[in-house]
Amino acid sequence: MAYSRHVDRLIEALRCLPSVGPKSAQRMAFQLLERDHQGALHLADALRAAVEGVQHCRECRMFADSELCGICASGNRDSSLLCVVETPADVLAVEQSTAYRGRYFVLMGHLSPLDGIGPAELGLELLEKKFSDAGVQEIILATNPTVEGEATAHYISQLAREHGIRATRIAHGVPIGGELEYIDGGTLAHAFAGRSDVRE
Amino acid sequence: MAYSRHVDRLIEALRCLPSVGPKSAQRMAFQLLERDHQGALHLADALRAAVEGVQHCRECRMFADSELCGICASGNRDSSLLCVVETPADVLAVEQSTAYRGRYFVLMGHLSPLDGIGPAELGLELLEKKFSDAGVQEIILATNPTVEGEATAHYISQLAREHGIRATRIAHGVPIGGELEYIDGGTLAHAFAGRSDVRE
Repeated sequence: MAYSRHVDRLIEALRCLPSVGPKSAQRMAFQLLERDHQGALHLADALRAAVEGVQHCRECRMFADSELCGICASGNRDSSLLCVVETPADVLAVEQSTAYRGRYFVLMGHLSPLDGIGPAELGLELLEKKFSDAGVQEIILATNPTVEGEATAHYISQLAREHGIRATRIAHGVPIGGELEYIDGGTLAHAFAGRSDVRE
Repeated sequence: MAYSRHVDRLIEALRCLPSVGPKSAQRMAFQLLERDHQGALHLADALRAAVEGVQHCRECRMFADSELCGICASGNRDSSLLCVVETPADVLAVEQSTAYRGRYFVLMGHLSPLDGIGPAELGLELLEKKFSDAGVQEIILATNPTVEGEATAHYISQLAREHGIRATRIAHGVPIGGELEYIDGGTLAHAFAGRSDVRE
């Protein structure tokens, strides 16, 4: 390899980014070294600051700069509603698209016994504590519609029931704007099974 | 935005990478913060080390750790052949696909008067000095087959002719409008083998 060790090391290091292969990593490294030293240094600082500065919110496990995240610290949120999601990205997706004004709980994953991820890793003790302490009346299960996501939702709904709290699951079916002809069979079957009465 | 400032800043900083939009940047930031703190710190170090440590080779303008790059420092290279390319990535592409054993000269761009890139920015004075000093007998023009690359090749071929040096252009087995960096090895090797004299 004709490159400098520094360049090789940078190309290698860039591969820790998701869906960045050897060619993309090389292109990124060259782009930064040829044209954007400022951006590269800024990125280096931001990476270090984020890894060292970001913590998990004490209440909901969301990324936060201090003990509480912005949503948990806010007084404008309905504490009787709690939406359970798998990842911080899901919180953003719900915030951007819906009118939901309750609070969140971020599992940071889903139940996956083979990978050693059980209730403790998902912070379910903390969640159960919220069931007893706070005035939660409804828990909205918004985990992904995968086998693991469904299992996780089922497990948490049972926990909720033990505490006399209503557990709901977000609807799964044909996406808006989608065409029936191209929807996969599983989704369509689910949509049929989950049909509801047409309101007047 | 419900995120921490650190996370927002990291997402913003990741956008300096080529073809990384807001969605990809968010996915990258979350992946690093959720699962790969080590990789993130390693990347931060590699970025800083590369920006601060990488210089341009005194002889060929390639990326290098010291004054000379590996190829210019090597005694196994044929000094009578000089291949002119636009970017460091092109050097790697040629090295990986062809049997070329001469030396290189990296322009770090192409002539583009509208962007203020003239002969001085491409180091053509240094190149001309090589024409007079060293025993260069043939200069192989391997700039991209784009309008600017062709113009650059033409300009350099005239310089070479003034010094009585043979100028050749790699064959146009390379598709017009394509970029050297992304061509498959066979095509590139073919283009090298089929090089021809630059016509008056």
